[in-house]
Amino acid sequence: MKPRIAITMGDPAGIGPEIIVGAWNETVVHDWCRPLVVGNPKILRRAVSLWQMNLEVIEIDDPKQAKPRPDVIPCIPCGSDNVLDVKPGTIDARTGLAAYQYAARAIELAIDGSVDAITTAPISKKAWALADIDLPGHTELLARMCDVDDFAMMLYLGPDDGMCGEAGLAVVHVTLHTALRNVFDMLTQEAILAKIRSADHFMRRLKGDRPRIGICSLNPHRGESGMFGTEEQMIIEPAVKQAIAEGLDVTGPMPTDTLMVHARDGEFDAVVAMFHDQGHIALKLLGMHRAVNITLGLPIVRTSVAHGTAFDIAWKRQAETGSLLEAIRVAAQLASA
Amino acid sequence: MKPRIAITMGDPAGIGPEIIVGAWNETVVHDWCRPLVVGNPKILRRAVSLWQMNLEVIEIDDPKQAKPRPDVIPCIPCGSDNVLDVKPGTIDARTGLAAYQYAARAIELAIDGSVDAITTAPISKKAWALADIDLPGHTELLARMCDVDDFAMMLYLGPDDGMCGEAGLAVVHVTLHTALRNVFDMLTQEAILAKIRSADHFMRRLKGDRPRIGICSLNPHRGESGMFGTEEQMIIEPAVKQAIAEGLDVTGPMPTDTLMVHARDGEFDAVVAMFHDQGHIALKLLGMHRAVNITLGLPIVRTSVAHGTAFDIAWKRQAETGSLLEAIRVAAQLASA
Repeated sequence: MKPRIAITMGDPAGIGPEIIVGAWNETVVHDWCRPLVVGNPKILRRAVSLWQMNLEVIEIDDPKQAKPRPDVIPCIPCGSDNVLDVKPGTIDARTGLAAYQYAARAIELAIDGSVDAITTAPISKKAWALADIDLPGHTELLARMCDVDDFAMMLYLGPDDGMCGEAGLAVVHVTLHTALRNVFDMLTQEAILAKIRSADHFMRRLKGDRPRIGICSLNPHRGESGMFGTEEQMIIEPAVKQAIAEGLDVTGPMPTDTLMVHARDGEFDAVVAMFHDQGHIALKLLGMHRAVNITLGLPIVRTSVAHGTAFDIAWKRQAETGSLLEAIRVAAQLASA
Repeated sequence: MKPRIAITMGDPAGIGPEIIVGAWNETVVHDWCRPLVVGNPKILRRAVSLWQMNLEVIEIDDPKQAKPRPDVIPCIPCGSDNVLDVKPGTIDARTGLAAYQYAARAIELAIDGSVDAITTAPISKKAWALADIDLPGHTELLARMCDVDDFAMMLYLGPDDGMCGEAGLAVVHVTLHTALRNVFDMLTQEAILAKIRSADHFMRRLKGDRPRIGICSLNPHRGESGMFGTEEQMIIEPAVKQAIAEGLDVTGPMPTDTLMVHARDGEFDAVVAMFHDQGHIALKLLGMHRAVNITLGLPIVRTSVAHGTAFDIAWKRQAETGSLLEAIRVAAQLASA
């Protein structure tokens, strides 16, 4: 049986609704899984109209009722209809709250086993804040609802012609959605080691073998022997040594700019980045529209697009569906593994 | 008359000598310019032997005596022969001092007009420090010898099939060779504005038209409306507004991971990065072996390879000559412009 996957609508004012409809139109999605949407069905119908597609949105109460077809979108209605009044491309407390509710509902469905995995469309963290939601984003909501402390977000690029690693390339971030200024206090030997273990655990499953993991430096030129910072010697190297002692295949810390070229050339299956931009600059250049987020350490499978709400192009039929497609594909693969 | 270019040997224990010999063997170099080497001729002969090439190294006192040919390397001898005792691939005060002297001699030649440009092979900043040289690297030495305060290092990738910008892509860094921790104090509106002006000035010359300049954010997601840092609002945006008021074509700050994809796709001629890894991760992925460093704001033309001494592979015939070739090509282009 193909896995049942709940796709959340994300922020209704962002590109979520239109990329869901766009992805639905790709028949390959229906070969991978049995998808359904959690969100506002009226918004979804607007997105169908936007694309001028011949697609029917059917409201259901329970995933079991879903009979997805390339021309039928089953939708579990959720949240208020006041989102219909929010102007596309704007940040608003109403759409923030709704996007939060779609996510929470989908996570419930995954926890109680009604769906096998969830794939999330992008939300606006600012809109969540406007709606007084006390969590920065999806990942923290997942951690809370799943009662998990030790989680990690992984950016993943599946294998393709341009990259040599047969299992693709995963990037785990030690710090992520925080001001660059805050990175220094958050960077501990324990935090780095935890992410190395996460990367190893995940890619071992995907590769079927011990993954080769490259570790980024924090500073330019690997700290240039201490002249450009000492975090490499004081924090990262001890974490690497410990990981090697645990039997993991770990190299680094290396100068990050060089490391990423080696990773692209297939010398690593996973990279542990110290902060957001290190991993994201590399992976977006290598495959902007194919990159996928995966939350590690959860009892459920969750993947996500690797881009934001793209308010500037939302509801203009300009959004790329590639990342959502890949997020659905990887969710289906993980749910079946 | 083709421009006369002095190529410095860089650290004798690094890959400098072998990539110079490798580049010499590319006949196209001799179409671009009249090259000569500043360094230790005995080390250069060792590199010729390493490659088992049929090349003669001829010692000269003055660039005017140089008669470079594909099979003849004119070399201005410089520094002590004690570098012959330093083990390849090691950091040593002797090779540090020598590399400093090669650079200083070549800069003198450029300042007095004996050569039209200089291209530098990589040095070890640590070896310079061991030799008690009170400058972090080439760029600062150039600034001091040229008596210049306002200089910038630019990373440049010439146009090619993979990138759309017809004049290539330049990245100027507001902060560069310093610990990431130090970036915050160095990031001022004035510093950013100065780099925007430098990028505009340089690329205008290369493009023959007003260049389109993209400005990086410091924090993830452009600071996510202030939730992940305020430098975008407090420092970078005011600098961008001022640059626009001066008539420059400036966009940003944008989330850096997205900006780099746009830059690759030809939407920008130059990018202003806030710190080392932002620019270097992107440009090395886009063209590791073609990237070139150019020092802006000097009265002389200076280009450099964009890689380091690569001690781990030095003197093993594994080094790529691509960056040196491109550095020589760009130096010749700038010296002729």
